Amino acid sequence: MTRRSEVRSCYGVALAEALAGLDEGGIPIGAALFRGEELIATGRNRRVQDDDPILHAEMTCFRNAGRRTDYADLTLYSTLAPCPMYTGAILLFQVPRVVVGESRTFAGELDLLRRRSVDVIVLDDAGSAQLMRTMMSAHPELWSEDIGGR
Amino acid sequence: MTRRSEVRSCYGVALAEALAGLDEGGIPIGAALFRGEELIATGRNRRVQDDDPILHAEMTCFRNAGRRTDYADLTLYSTLAPCPMYTGAILLFQVPRVVVGESRTFAGELDLLRRRSVDVIVLDDAGSAQLMRTMMSAHPELWSEDIGGR
Repeated sequence: MTRRSEVRSCYGVALAEALAGLDEGGIPIGAALFRGEELIATGRNRRVQDDDPILHAEMTCFRNAGRRTDYADLTLYSTLAPCPMYTGAILLFQVPRVVVGESRTFAGELDLLRRRSVDVIVLDDAGSAQLMRTMMSAHPELWSEDIGGR
Repeated sequence: MTRRSEVRSCYGVALAEALAGLDEGGIPIGAALFRGEELIATGRNRRVQDDDPILHAEMTCFRNAGRRTDYADLTLYSTLAPCPMYTGAILLFQVPRVVVGESRTFAGELDLLRRRSVDVIVLDDAGSAQLMRTMMSAHPELWSEDIGGR
């Protein structure tokens, strides 16, 4: 398997989480943690499902990955550019690499991550962007709430 | 009640959370969210108690405060300087003011918060610092784990 196909394959797991969130009536953002091609944990945004403001997809994924000390070996995949909260979690746990689906619908903190030496890859995935645009259009108040009313 | 005594009184609620965490065998860091003098929510670090890596005191506090849109009116009190994760949560939710117990045992992201126009007050509370030093000395591996092995 080439490196590029590995990234696409692992990213597909995060995208599947976003789609599962959509099916549940949630905010369609998904995440996955991998060690190379080994899946460690998945997560999706659970603000609506669990009525919990901190459960962004990536936070759910870190929770599901459990207590660990091997973050230096992991890559976080997310369908959306890093919000400040999950940017902070990446910096806290010192995850060295993040693969992001798209940053068109939400710019996020790509610059901060890069300034702190995190390797960031943006795939510019049209599928994830379309999911976000549909949700933002249908539920603008929910999206505003999820990103702190900005 | 003077402004200074209000801050000390509200901070006391966060410190009580840290002490409750210590009694439970957890990491002794506490937090509280207030609207002026009105208590909105409390939280303490629950890494050990819930076996959950994302439940720093401030994250637990944001969770306990529930889904809301009035963060602009709130002040977060925490016994410890802001780790990257809770710094990110403050920036995401756009909480305008943070009162920190101490930054001697952990420097945190005070500069980042200030650069993003968050009003940060550091009390330099000897009680919280002593709690942290005792825990760091007794359980260095637990503390290392809680801040991503740094």
